[in-house]
Amino acid sequence: MKPRLLELLYEPAVRAALAEDLGRAGDLTTDAIVGPETAAAAVIVARRGGRIAGLEVARSAFTLVDPRLRWSPLVEDGTDAAQGAVLAEITGPARGLLTAERVALNFLGHLSGIATTTARMVDAVRDYRAHIVCTRKTTPGLRALEKYAVRMGGGHNHRFGLDDAVLIKDNHIAIAGGVREAVERARGFVGHMVTIEVEVESLEQLEEVMALGVDAVLLDNMSSDVLRRAVEIVAGRAVTEASGGITPETAAEIASTGVDLLSVGWLTHSAPSLDVSLDIELR
Amino acid sequence: MKPRLLELLYEPAVRAALAEDLGRAGDLTTDAIVGPETAAAAVIVARRGGRIAGLEVARSAFTLVDPRLRWSPLVEDGTDAAQGAVLAEITGPARGLLTAERVALNFLGHLSGIATTTARMVDAVRDYRAHIVCTRKTTPGLRALEKYAVRMGGGHNHRFGLDDAVLIKDNHIAIAGGVREAVERARGFVGHMVTIEVEVESLEQLEEVMALGVDAVLLDNMSSDVLRRAVEIVAGRAVTEASGGITPETAAEIASTGVDLLSVGWLTHSAPSLDVSLDIELR
Amino acid sequence: MKPRLLELLYEPAVRAALAEDLGRAGDLTTDAIVGPETAAAAVIVARRGGRIAGLEVARSAFTLVDPRLRWSPLVEDGTDAAQGAVLAEITGPARGLLTAERVALNFLGHLSGIATTTARMVDAVRDYRAHIVCTRKTTPGLRALEKYAVRMGGGHNHRFGLDDAVLIKDNHIAIAGGVREAVERARGFVGHMVTIEVEVESLEQLEEVMALGVDAVLLDNMSSDVLRRAVEIVAGRAVTEASGGITPETAAEIASTGVDLLSVGWLTHSAPSLDVSLDIELR
Amino acid sequence: MKPRLLELLYEPAVRAALAEDLGRAGDLTTDAIVGPETAAAAVIVARRGGRIAGLEVARSAFTLVDPRLRWSPLVEDGTDAAQGAVLAEITGPARGLLTAERVALNFLGHLSGIATTTARMVDAVRDYRAHIVCTRKTTPGLRALEKYAVRMGGGHNHRFGLDDAVLIKDNHIAIAGGVREAVERARGFVGHMVTIEVEVESLEQLEEVMALGVDAVLLDNMSSDVLRRAVEIVAGRAVTEASGGITPETAAEIASTGVDLLSVGWLTHSAPSLDVSLDIELR
Amino acid sequence: MKPRLLELLYEPAVRAALAEDLGRAGDLTTDAIVGPETAAAAVIVARRGGRIAGLEVARSAFTLVDPRLRWSPLVEDGTDAAQGAVLAEITGPARGLLTAERVALNFLGHLSGIATTTARMVDAVRDYRAHIVCTRKTTPGLRALEKYAVRMGGGHNHRFGLDDAVLIKDNHIAIAGGVREAVERARGFVGHMVTIEVEVESLEQLEEVMALGVDAVLLDNMSSDVLRRAVEIVAGRAVTEASGGITPETAAEIASTGVDLLSVGWLTHSAPSLDVSLDIELR
Amino acid sequence: MKPRLLELLYEPAVRAALAEDLGRAGDLTTDAIVGPETAAAAVIVARRGGRIAGLEVARSAFTLVDPRLRWSPLVEDGTDAAQGAVLAEITGPARGLLTAERVALNFLGHLSGIATTTARMVDAVRDYRAHIVCTRKTTPGLRALEKYAVRMGGGHNHRFGLDDAVLIKDNHIAIAGGVREAVERARGFVGHMVTIEVEVESLEQLEEVMALGVDAVLLDNMSSDVLRRAVEIVAGRAVTEASGGITPETAAEIASTGVDLLSVGWLTHSAPSLDVSLDIELR
Repeated sequence: MKPRLLELLYEPAVRAALAEDLGRAGDLTTDAIVGPETAAAAVIVARRGGRIAGLEVARSAFTLVDPRLRWSPLVEDGTDAAQGAVLAEITGPARGLLTAERVALNFLGHLSGIATTTARMVDAVRDYRAHIVCTRKTTPGLRALEKYAVRMGGGHNHRFGLDDAVLIKDNHIAIAGGVREAVERARGFVGHMVTIEVEVESLEQLEEVMALGVDAVLLDNMSSDVLRRAVEIVAGRAVTEASGGITPETAAEIASTGVDLLSVGWLTHSAPSLDVSLDIELR
Repeated sequence: MKPRLLELLYEPAVRAALAEDLGRAGDLTTDAIVGPETAAAAVIVARRGGRIAGLEVARSAFTLVDPRLRWSPLVEDGTDAAQGAVLAEITGPARGLLTAERVALNFLGHLSGIATTTARMVDAVRDYRAHIVCTRKTTPGLRALEKYAVRMGGGHNHRFGLDDAVLIKDNHIAIAGGVREAVERARGFVGHMVTIEVEVESLEQLEEVMALGVDAVLLDNMSSDVLRRAVEIVAGRAVTEASGGITPETAAEIASTGVDLLSVGWLTHSAPSLDVSLDIELR
Repeated sequence: MKPRLLELLYEPAVRAALAEDLGRAGDLTTDAIVGPETAAAAVIVARRGGRIAGLEVARSAFTLVDPRLRWSPLVEDGTDAAQGAVLAEITGPARGLLTAERVALNFLGHLSGIATTTARMVDAVRDYRAHIVCTRKTTPGLRALEKYAVRMGGGHNHRFGLDDAVLIKDNHIAIAGGVREAVERARGFVGHMVTIEVEVESLEQLEEVMALGVDAVLLDNMSSDVLRRAVEIVAGRAVTEASGGITPETAAEIASTGVDLLSVGWLTHSAPSLDVSLDIELR
Repeated sequence: MKPRLLELLYEPAVRAALAEDLGRAGDLTTDAIVGPETAAAAVIVARRGGRIAGLEVARSAFTLVDPRLRWSPLVEDGTDAAQGAVLAEITGPARGLLTAERVALNFLGHLSGIATTTARMVDAVRDYRAHIVCTRKTTPGLRALEKYAVRMGGGHNHRFGLDDAVLIKDNHIAIAGGVREAVERARGFVGHMVTIEVEVESLEQLEEVMALGVDAVLLDNMSSDVLRRAVEIVAGRAVTEASGGITPETAAEIASTGVDLLSVGWLTHSAPSLDVSLDIELR
Repeated sequence: MKPRLLELLYEPAVRAALAEDLGRAGDLTTDAIVGPETAAAAVIVARRGGRIAGLEVARSAFTLVDPRLRWSPLVEDGTDAAQGAVLAEITGPARGLLTAERVALNFLGHLSGIATTTARMVDAVRDYRAHIVCTRKTTPGLRALEKYAVRMGGGHNHRFGLDDAVLIKDNHIAIAGGVREAVERARGFVGHMVTIEVEVESLEQLEEVMALGVDAVLLDNMSSDVLRRAVEIVAGRAVTEASGGITPETAAEIASTGVDLLSVGWLTHSAPSLDVSLDIELR
Repeated sequence: MKPRLLELLYEPAVRAALAEDLGRAGDLTTDAIVGPETAAAAVIVARRGGRIAGLEVARSAFTLVDPRLRWSPLVEDGTDAAQGAVLAEITGPARGLLTAERVALNFLGHLSGIATTTARMVDAVRDYRAHIVCTRKTTPGLRALEKYAVRMGGGHNHRFGLDDAVLIKDNHIAIAGGVREAVERARGFVGHMVTIEVEVESLEQLEEVMALGVDAVLLDNMSSDVLRRAVEIVAGRAVTEASGGITPETAAEIASTGVDLLSVGWLTHSAPSLDVSLDIELR
């Protein structure tokens, strides 16, 4: 089952992007050159192969500019498209097609870029039980869409924000005066549906944390050997999450340690856009 | 002279990013563990060397969360920071510091990543007269900030949107039934302060366009030899802009053809984030 | 430690409430009668005893109308005030005081009403381990503030929304074709930081659910005897939550069954407002 | 004739409530368990008898989440529903039904609770000419909807805000230095379509006010005997409004004094929600 | 006493106007030419004599762009300024001064233009008891500010919107099937603080309306003789309002009929802007 | 070809205007008197002849209030309507017709007033090559619509804001320390698609500016003789724009000097509204 992308939630971002591109005077070039009655058909093409995400968002860019545009998707979010594959067909007034093009492609390329990068990372660990998860290192304003794109790439989502789980890091521990104190404060504070994860930096600290009964441990910047040992210590009593400079090259090695999760900020803050284009033919 | 980054304009994006991260319940971890009276000091550190952009945006994330936080920048936007360099110091309530951290770093890393990538490209063409310019292939919602980051990297800006210049592409020409017709329609349509640029795909088309007296020509996907010939044809009568798959490796070769501009969508849609972090010390 | 009420998050609600009260022409009565230089002092008084919540929200109503108003709280959110107790003093321009009065009191009365009702319910179960928790049956637009008020009353919070935990109800089970199928779909769908709770209607169903290893069970509309038996079956393997028509009169009996949580929608959708007033004296 | 509830005006409140409930990730439970093609039918049922208000608002919650949902109301706002009565039927995609359920019911229960409470108060004074009116003591953000609900309960509305009528209270009189001065300032200030009401605390003050020719008098916290005398003094020259601690038990006695209006803040700030639920059946 | 112009209410309009002028890239000219440290002083000058309104609104344009700008008004809203008079001085960063100039002047010129036009009309009827009132024919988005400007010109305000009074026009009467029916429906519908005005087109209709006991009558497009007769018929029992093509030339004649009000849509929809300018001197 | 008026961009202004008129309680008069089932037909009539602009904006006011209203335009934006001409027919629910009327007419009258004034100015210079252009002296919040109206009147648009072209005025030159310095700073600052215009006050300054190679010169407050000489000096090397107190009476004389543009702030800040009305007939 895939998560819905509720138009109610993403439409404001599309409207904002259109306003940003249209400015005060709208599409000068198209208004000058293309008549209001000219019809056209277009296809959206993947100029590089990749995992697709964001087709519905792209569609809404077109239909917000002109509700008469007809959108026919040929693939679905979460599927792979080969280089040159047609992702969708759009027909209707040529003006609307040309005016909405860039915003639609900016969303689709950005989200598909994240999905594609995620899919490669997921593939790198396919022989292991580990999941690839994203972080809160997202592009400002696009978190929910980027988290969706990670899902479309086969990854999973970590926290959506500061308010949906507790993640105790070194600074929190230092301020609390110890990990026990930090965990106890957190447990007394949050409701029964909120999970608690603690970042640990050494195996000694891990043992201390496990004695406190937390839901998950974040194993930051540990070598494979240490990670392997950490997984043994945890022994299924908590979710184990490795983080820190994980790349497609190192992912399999890290996954082989038996950790449950590899968290990768890079999926959302540095994935290159997937190259998608709109080809128009007149009608 | 540098462009101002008017807080009036970027503050809504920072507020939106904070709302996105804080959700409904705010920072559960910090509220549970850190007392309201605890003070702290922190530094923002560049974990990789790069060109900095967005310090003011990062500052506003902190001061929106807690106006009592004091921000002291040690470098300026548009300067290079070495790996490990301290970019700014922040002191004040520890809760606010921890709660605003991620949003501040997400903006700073994203914009500095663009500035850094731009600076590398600018450096690659330093022996030539060509400028590096960005495109409308920006991250939805962040165009003005990203265009600012390109400037901080030493690049220049192309159109900010569909409404501030005319750029006639192949589709427009096809619909108009010829480049002459397209240029004439545009010229009759826009005001005297709006420039007209035309995308050309061959030297024949270039000659036709030059006879029409446009302000700029976009030379798309041409080899260096053809570009060189195009620059000779234009002979200073219009701005010449090369585009299409330009990389740091190919930039110098293209710049050597004498074109005025190299436009690179990749600066804004695919530049990796610069790694910046916040280190806290208690007080 | 108490949760922060970040002004950044609640200020839009206060601005909206002020706009709603001020309309297009502002406070006709005050503008007509009170001169711009008239100063005044006022106290906010609890006309009934109760648990206070929302003082900061009330303050922001005054300072948004006139930043020169000085606010001095005499009690803190989360404390009990006796009938007639002074909660805060405000001094400054009389116009601002009078204009902001109603909006400030509407927030303070509404949130303190919820805190007071919660505190009474918490007191009713003081001899047991059970916590009082609220639900998603909140007043539209005020959820985060109402959940905060429940905390100030000594209660705890259940889900803040549809997106921060899984709660599988009878309809979901029916659609999935069985509780096992529903739980498995949910587990495969959500990330490692998301908890899963299942609503059960009989002890047979409870046994089936417990075999699936969920985080919490919602025991809806069960008698005390059945609840007691349910707690034995769960035996600490999951959080147990009782719901359905719980009142201050029945709460102790239900808590005595050993359940972890009593969830009460009534706290947020039907708690009467606490009577608070503003008394002005001229200066 | 009933007042319209213009969707244009209330839709933003419904969108805000949906955003509040959906958060960043949407309805995790439903997305995990319910397929996109599953259809369902549901009925909205009154679990307690009461006066209904807000059906259109509830409808818009469903259609904003999924425009394919079909809504068939069986009763109208402003009518009484018996316990167990079906208020509306909804058919369409099961996902949308489940996701919108809580927001729709929160509005419908809140507004029907106000209408029901109002209706009981209206019934209590059915033998007298007095109208029941609400005040500005409303839930922040919901004033227009709550005032509508009062109308659906058979009540009338007092001022919608500070800007649509003058209501001179004791503080205004004290600042002006006397009721005459206050009334004269107000009369010189407002336009010809704005009415003036004065709060009076004694019969002496009432005589003074009546000599000034105001439109209405607010008789605050007076006994029945004093009210009766006040009505005689006014003798139809102004609207008479009684306020202060009026309950269903005391309303008839107060109405029997001959006052025109009984104003009751409690209708909007403390009416308990009406219990309404959504029952789903698969299709 | 003057009505307050609450910054809380007008600031969004000023922010919107600044965003409209700054676009995406801000003030290119100033950013290119003026250094961030350059200080300047400026005066706002009335290039034509007139009645001033909107100084606070102009101030907020400057301080929103740069809070360091200091604003010193030399006159007050509601006073007359001679040609060449200095209205305010502003000192601080030159960039902010130049960037905010146009938006500040656009508001100040527009509102002062309305105040000036109103003042001329008020002066034309100075020998009579009639007030000059404005209508709902205002510039979209600026109604509250324009109504304020009318007040500053010595005029009064009619309805602020459709919701603060009843005005029954010919179409309503036709639909109701008669003026009696229309008035009775209105009286049964609205609360005790809402006034009822009826538009009448003949003296016969006026007599019918007066028998119904309304608060005001709108005498549309009547000659002076007919108006005079109408005032006699009304005999103080209702407010009398003349409307229809009233100009400064005809106003005195109409006022001489004894009507209470002259309503003039032209004040708000067609008053020319007052010419105000900003003169900068470097420091 | 005419510029599009994208509903996406102007709809927020129409919604805001409707909210401004409807207030909290909506259209009291219509709701009281007109039944929900009553249907009506109406025509929009030009009560004065003029150039029409804004029909689509007026339409959206009606359809936002009630989507069932049917709109049939009889003329197009940019055409002239004789006095008494019917501009559009509207049919559907009478309530919606009456409620939306004023907002629709306020937009249509305001924009048609600008178009009409522009058309008269354009006609005054019909024997010359000069274009009539508007300025940034627009009504706050309505710039894009007003610039559109100018186009519908046959005029052209100057800058839409501070960010789409450089216009160097006397203050900028003074701060830069000379026009050469100012132009050079601007040229080094802006991208290749941004034009540079310089305001000149004397022929000496004009010669200096022309040597710098700018795109346009603003000739402010020059006599016809001086203008004529200026045009000779420029000799086609830049666009020439005359400004300063141009009226329909003086326009032809100024145009006869050979300047390219006459810029007139008065088109947008002081054009009187065109008188349009809505006539309803019952059905």
